Amino acid sequence: MDKLQVVKIGGNVIEDRKALIDFLQDFVNLKGKKILVHGGGKEATIMAKQLGVDVQMIDGRRITDAANLDIATMLYAGKINKTIVAKLQSLNCLALGLSGADGNSIRALKRPPHPIDYGFVGDIEQVNTSLFSLLLNQGYTPVCSAITHDQKGQLLNTNADTIAASLSTALAKEYNVTLSYCFEKKGVLADSNNDSTVISNLNYPIFETMKKSGAIHSGMLPKIHNCFDALKKGVHQVRIGSPKMITENEPHTQILL
Amino acid sequence: MDKLQVVKIGGNVIEDRKALIDFLQDFVNLKGKKILVHGGGKEATIMAKQLGVDVQMIDGRRITDAANLDIATMLYAGKINKTIVAKLQSLNCLALGLSGADGNSIRALKRPPHPIDYGFVGDIEQVNTSLFSLLLNQGYTPVCSAITHDQKGQLLNTNADTIAASLSTALAKEYNVTLSYCFEKKGVLADSNNDSTVISNLNYPIFETMKKSGAIHSGMLPKIHNCFDALKKGVHQVRIGSPKMITENEPHTQILL
Repeated sequence: MDKLQVVKIGGNVIEDRKALIDFLQDFVNLKGKKILVHGGGKEATIMAKQLGVDVQMIDGRRITDAANLDIATMLYAGKINKTIVAKLQSLNCLALGLSGADGNSIRALKRPPHPIDYGFVGDIEQVNTSLFSLLLNQGYTPVCSAITHDQKGQLLNTNADTIAASLSTALAKEYNVTLSYCFEKKGVLADSNNDSTVISNLNYPIFETMKKSGAIHSGMLPKIHNCFDALKKGVHQVRIGSPKMITENEPHTQILL
Repeated sequence: MDKLQVVKIGGNVIEDRKALIDFLQDFVNLKGKKILVHGGGKEATIMAKQLGVDVQMIDGRRITDAANLDIATMLYAGKINKTIVAKLQSLNCLALGLSGADGNSIRALKRPPHPIDYGFVGDIEQVNTSLFSLLLNQGYTPVCSAITHDQKGQLLNTNADTIAASLSTALAKEYNVTLSYCFEKKGVLADSNNDSTVISNLNYPIFETMKKSGAIHSGMLPKIHNCFDALKKGVHQVRIGSPKMITENEPHTQILL
């Protein structure tokens, strides 16, 4: 089985021009087949303000109405995706940007409006693995934005962590997949205020204990659930850490069942 | 040689939701291999106003500074491209949106700043025909936006008519290409105020005569130059007309050498 690296970068890297360039240089140095998945960052909120579009939040989660979906599509599938692709091309990486609509690469279902109507938000149903294999086998590097579609003509805003996990899972039948979640910390921390407390190996019992004690909370919970889910579904290796972990021997958190 | 249809639609179709849906339905009904190239329309000007970005014009031509390039990228490669792709997918067409940066599909050179500095505008240098063949042969329909790149990390705004002609020309070695320019008129008119004066066959001598008399002027001149250029470089058939011409026996202008 060929190896495949699926790397997800979050908003904090996207927003920091220098951090993004450094990361992309490291990403290009990764040998073999690879896919990049990127989130959006705060630019969508800034643009909504500039355009006079309201941003509604429920329980800390953004509601994607039609106007906010347009902004997400413009930024994530447009400006951010194409800026990353153009930069990767300049570094001799044959990057090719995709939204889930492109080649029906990721089909999703609009989340039901009850109990909370999140608007145009999609939960992933199917990955077009033949498109990814076709591109990977011809030397292309897919760069996936956090926009999917329902195959009925509707674009949908979709969590980038979940996209990375779904792609990894779907491609695990054909490739030996390593999934790397890169974010602003060096990994899952035993003490969220102390960067030197990276947990090297996080298994489910440790996770359960840390969840109960409140050491792992809010945004990290769904991220780690995605990790365990990917491992259960055949992904070879899942890790969480800083962007540097993908090329250097940097401390990070390895997720284990 | 397989047949390939390259169809370009302009801003007027993009801006009219119903016209766009009608066109896309017709486009889907076209049998065989096909590529769609789309322009942008006035939305970029509207968004520039909303964002407080100045739009500079020289001799009726737009200058693409960094802020206007961002807007073009967001709209052309983002919102408009993905909206078209999602709609085509809903009509069972395996559309895949591309900017020139994606897969290095279209590489361009930033236009020299003398005598007029048009800003981030690109003149096409090379088409990655192997990517288009790969996609077409696997049943995908490329949908190309009017954004290219210079392979040095810079995105560039590029005329959609020229993109359609360059794609057609580059692919004429492998396919029997028909290039169709769809716009708001039924073809090249002998009298631009009279829609019933469509010239069925326009050859170079007729074109020269009409240019001298002023019957063909302004925006039509580079469009028709693109047509002759494509024919000279091996494109099988080039025509100009309304979107309906691609599926129906609608009057239109056939360009002949």
